[in-house]
Amino acid sequence: MAIHQLTFHPSAKTLSIPDGALLTEALRLAGLEIPLPCGGQGRCGRCAVVVESGTVRRRSMIRLTAADVEANYALACQSVIEADAVIFVPEQEKIERRLVTDKTALKVAVPFAYDAGRDQTVRTFPMTLPPPSLVDATDDMERLECALASCGVHDLDMPLPMLRELGACLRKSPWQATAVIETDNWRQPEGPPRLIDLVPGVSPFNAYGVAIDIGTTTVTVILVDLASGEVINSAAEYNGQIARGEDVISRIIYAGKNDGLGELGSLARGTINEVIHRLCQGSHIQSRSIYKATIVGNTTMMHLFLGLPPASIRLAPYVPTINNPLPLRASEVGLDIHPMAAVDCLPGVASYVGADITAGVLSSELAEAQGLTLFIDVGTNGEIVLGTQDWLVTCACSAGPAFEGAGVVCGMRATRGAIEEVWVNTRTFEPTYRVIDEAKPKGLCGSGLISLLAELFITGAVDKSGRFKMDLGTPRIREGEHGGEYVVAWAGETTTGNDIVLTTVDIDNLMRAKAAIYGGFTVLAKSVGTDLADVERVLIGGSFGKYLNVEKAVQIGLLPDMPWDRFHFLGNTAVFGAYQALLSRSARAKIKAIAKKMTYVELSADNSFYEAFTSALFLPHTDLAKFPTVAALWDKNRSAVPIGGH
Amino acid sequence: MAIHQLTFHPSAKTLSIPDGALLTEALRLAGLEIPLPCGGQGRCGRCAVVVESGTVRRRSMIRLTAADVEANYALACQSVIEADAVIFVPEQEKIERRLVTDKTALKVAVPFAYDAGRDQTVRTFPMTLPPPSLVDATDDMERLECALASCGVHDLDMPLPMLRELGACLRKSPWQATAVIETDNWRQPEGPPRLIDLVPGVSPFNAYGVAIDIGTTTVTVILVDLASGEVINSAAEYNGQIARGEDVISRIIYAGKNDGLGELGSLARGTINEVIHRLCQGSHIQSRSIYKATIVGNTTMMHLFLGLPPASIRLAPYVPTINNPLPLRASEVGLDIHPMAAVDCLPGVASYVGADITAGVLSSELAEAQGLTLFIDVGTNGEIVLGTQDWLVTCACSAGPAFEGAGVVCGMRATRGAIEEVWVNTRTFEPTYRVIDEAKPKGLCGSGLISLLAELFITGAVDKSGRFKMDLGTPRIREGEHGGEYVVAWAGETTTGNDIVLTTVDIDNLMRAKAAIYGGFTVLAKSVGTDLADVERVLIGGSFGKYLNVEKAVQIGLLPDMPWDRFHFLGNTAVFGAYQALLSRSARAKIKAIAKKMTYVELSADNSFYEAFTSALFLPHTDLAKFPTVAALWDKNRSAVPIGGH
Repeated sequence: MAIHQLTFHPSAKTLSIPDGALLTEALRLAGLEIPLPCGGQGRCGRCAVVVESGTVRRRSMIRLTAADVEANYALACQSVIEADAVIFVPEQEKIERRLVTDKTALKVAVPFAYDAGRDQTVRTFPMTLPPPSLVDATDDMERLECALASCGVHDLDMPLPMLRELGACLRKSPWQATAVIETDNWRQPEGPPRLIDLVPGVSPFNAYGVAIDIGTTTVTVILVDLASGEVINSAAEYNGQIARGEDVISRIIYAGKNDGLGELGSLARGTINEVIHRLCQGSHIQSRSIYKATIVGNTTMMHLFLGLPPASIRLAPYVPTINNPLPLRASEVGLDIHPMAAVDCLPGVASYVGADITAGVLSSELAEAQGLTLFIDVGTNGEIVLGTQDWLVTCACSAGPAFEGAGVVCGMRATRGAIEEVWVNTRTFEPTYRVIDEAKPKGLCGSGLISLLAELFITGAVDKSGRFKMDLGTPRIREGEHGGEYVVAWAGETTTGNDIVLTTVDIDNLMRAKAAIYGGFTVLAKSVGTDLADVERVLIGGSFGKYLNVEKAVQIGLLPDMPWDRFHFLGNTAVFGAYQALLSRSARAKIKAIAKKMTYVELSADNSFYEAFTSALFLPHTDLAKFPTVAALWDKNRSAVPIGGH
Repeated sequence: MAIHQLTFHPSAKTLSIPDGALLTEALRLAGLEIPLPCGGQGRCGRCAVVVESGTVRRRSMIRLTAADVEANYALACQSVIEADAVIFVPEQEKIERRLVTDKTALKVAVPFAYDAGRDQTVRTFPMTLPPPSLVDATDDMERLECALASCGVHDLDMPLPMLRELGACLRKSPWQATAVIETDNWRQPEGPPRLIDLVPGVSPFNAYGVAIDIGTTTVTVILVDLASGEVINSAAEYNGQIARGEDVISRIIYAGKNDGLGELGSLARGTINEVIHRLCQGSHIQSRSIYKATIVGNTTMMHLFLGLPPASIRLAPYVPTINNPLPLRASEVGLDIHPMAAVDCLPGVASYVGADITAGVLSSELAEAQGLTLFIDVGTNGEIVLGTQDWLVTCACSAGPAFEGAGVVCGMRATRGAIEEVWVNTRTFEPTYRVIDEAKPKGLCGSGLISLLAELFITGAVDKSGRFKMDLGTPRIREGEHGGEYVVAWAGETTTGNDIVLTTVDIDNLMRAKAAIYGGFTVLAKSVGTDLADVERVLIGGSFGKYLNVEKAVQIGLLPDMPWDRFHFLGNTAVFGAYQALLSRSARAKIKAIAKKMTYVELSADNSFYEAFTSALFLPHTDLAKFPTVAALWDKNRSAVPIGGH
């Protein structure tokens, strides 16, 4: 097989690559990470590089303009290496690796009157055993079992690797040892207790647990003292899978390629283990003393973490391998905690309503609500639950990642340099904006996009259908490559040296996203014969709620129009739910009951969602009666500044 | 670290070895296998090599005569490499690798009216599942569980590796699949059934099982069709651990060195897998279609196979890690059958009464005996069980490997060239002998040693205490290096070119071995207040019985003196017991009950064994009244040939 020589600039790295390999593969081997938000499908154009000399075979040139092609741009994920080449790799949007110390999580109190003896399934049992003799040559295992029987623990499940250590352990601190045992789990409440660790001696030691939320974008971990139930610390990190696809669909596609599944699994494990190590180091704790983990995440994240092929999640009729994984051991899934630790992946409901949502329902106490309550978790997807203590219905809207800044020309994640809020002057249409970390602006994050669109609508700069009014006489609104666009920041103000704009195409994306979510509300309410207006409380979970301005979200028709005091931001409800299930067998039983109780409404099953969606494809909605306060404000603005009155 | 150059003759192999390494290590690295019957303790002298040039540091010279040292002999296991050297490696006694097709096993009939549906725990369940749709998007796992529930299988235990295949498997032969399930096991008769395999489609296929006996010397495997219960084939092979020690004590010592435990485990697995592959090839069966294994062996063999450190077995109070291992999967123990296959290591009783003996009690039906019955299994150790249907007592005598030809100057295993039976002329003391495979003689195997000793005693060539009569006027009896010796075969008749002799030291070894076993009989009988004379049947298991001449064994006092029709040779009772437990849950329950019922008598706990042992250190015994037929024969010979009458 022919071997070609590749050189990458500006790093000047050189390596030999076999004929037929993809340029993305070569970049990976060279240690030059390049983001693949679309999962390497050639859809997003983010992996464009410049072929400075030599050639590559371009399998697809979609997303490249004629000028790009002229300038020898190529998409790395679509470029086959067939000759020596010199490649220029433009500086990529770096994912800023930062320690997200989630202050909400840190402030979390033990969520109920926690009694480890009653609530905790993982407990320590100090034991003093009678030493063996010629008249009592009972084997080590039976000797241990007898001692445990007197603690009420019977029929111990002893894994072979632990049995191999048993003899040495019992003799180290002669015939005194402390067992760490999972006394029961949701799968076998009456089943055999499982030995997790056996420590020589009877000196007390701390047993820890972790609650893990594997988000599509962010992995969050809470470190907990299992005896007191207290949170020791928490931390978060971007999910290492991001570079292989920004949304679940891109990752499912990536998982289907070669060893994509293995790679995505190890990226998720890598991120989780990195966060766990950081937490352990910060608290001077050995990761081996973490004996239990509960894990939540959407169904795709769970599949990728467990190494289950996710392909069927993407294809009708959207059937996952499993919603309710069986109890596991840490060594089976590669978690860097005690290898025998109990790992409990909490149950989900369907392919697009995962354990993150059931955990959210648990921690938000939706399942105990007296009145009609709406729970939403908008991340890359939008999952919605409507219900009371008596019933729960749920659906998932494929909103797409627009609210996370993807699919938008100047979109970006909510990190340093992101414009997070915008105000537009009603008369001049000049903007004022706030930037994360008060840095020079680089792009618009989700809350900035919602804020800007709402302002443009309320000020009359765009109409109900999201079209720009081109005759307002402001240089901010101009004709761009793909139709009208609004300039939020001029090139001179930005770190990129380019204008930051919101285009008509961007607005279309945002409107489709918000219409999908509002359409979901509508269908859910209709499915149980109720009305959104009857909702007494709206609980907002997930990172989305952290920066969201409800007023603006209502103005674009993303959230229903109702008094602000009905909205409650709950933070990362998913990881809070995992935390509760980590502590208490009754919380664990509750989440199982919740998953069973939730009725999943498949939006693609009939036309009602399509109708609700198209009705919502306006600002704020086709039916203005549903948004009385927005309608009133719009009318007020219109009367104050007559159109064409400049 | 200094590196030395070693050259081995006659192979002319050369290699570099770091200073301080053992010569045995160097031989292994050079691929020159050398047997270590004593486990590398410098006790047996079998690893002697010649230092042709250069030097080695001899840590011990025990077992080397002055002449040996003069001739530059060194024990490889005791030689530290400290300089360049040229080493001559004499040709070793090769372990003949032969297919021991155990004809007894092949003739075995299904041991009871076998009904797989009732008796077998591993069964196949063909299923047709309703295909998923938008209105029934039940996940794959729950769909499978529903289908199994209609077959009466609930709460399936699904291992993660199988869950990873589930989606593809159910879709391959769309929504038809056959599950192989262990519906229950001895540990959890009511516990969750365990999925072993899921095969696309519903075409019938055969499920197989293997019954395995890991003997100290020989590994035996029976391949069984689980549906009919019939034996497909059986085969045996020398245990690959032999080269690391011939008896269990040597292996326990070897296991304590560096990675000795890992090495012994992989040698045992290697032998088992080799036999399984041979059986599968011979019967055109995929080893992946073997779904169940039952394993027996003495407690040390079980520990080494499972990777459990055996050190405490050897040291008072002789406590093993476990007598009753928990159910395992093939992948956990490295068996080359279906990785999820159910592996059941049958229960033993104590450090020196293992699962091979409980399995022997099961298959010999001792536990159903009406009258007093003695069961013996003499291999490297001698295990004895005495009892009736109401009670069972057991003990183990460390007879040592004398009956397997070890510890005896011209001893060898029962392979080609071994003298297996000897007759000595009452007048001339000239021998007649029979050699295995009618080859030229090379040495004496166990049955040959017993036969020769009995003849020498009965003819009066040795006295009751095992001393040679030196005044018989035959050249066959002469003064050797260690006292009197008898020449069975002159150098000219043998393959070695040396005389084959039995020395006074050899006789001492044999007498200690037989006295240990007879002492065990005595103590067991006494412990339950009965007498050996009341024994109605003697059941002889193990390979020992295969070639044994009962008459001769009685004459030396190894077996009690009773009518020959009370002796029954049962062949490999251990593997037969494993075969029964493989087939039937009730046989499995029975062996568990047997292990529980057997009272272990520790011979070293008081003086009674020592007394019984020393009383038996004569031919046939101090108390001739216990051996009336032997006494009569001896008297007859004495009167026919007056001593000194030549």
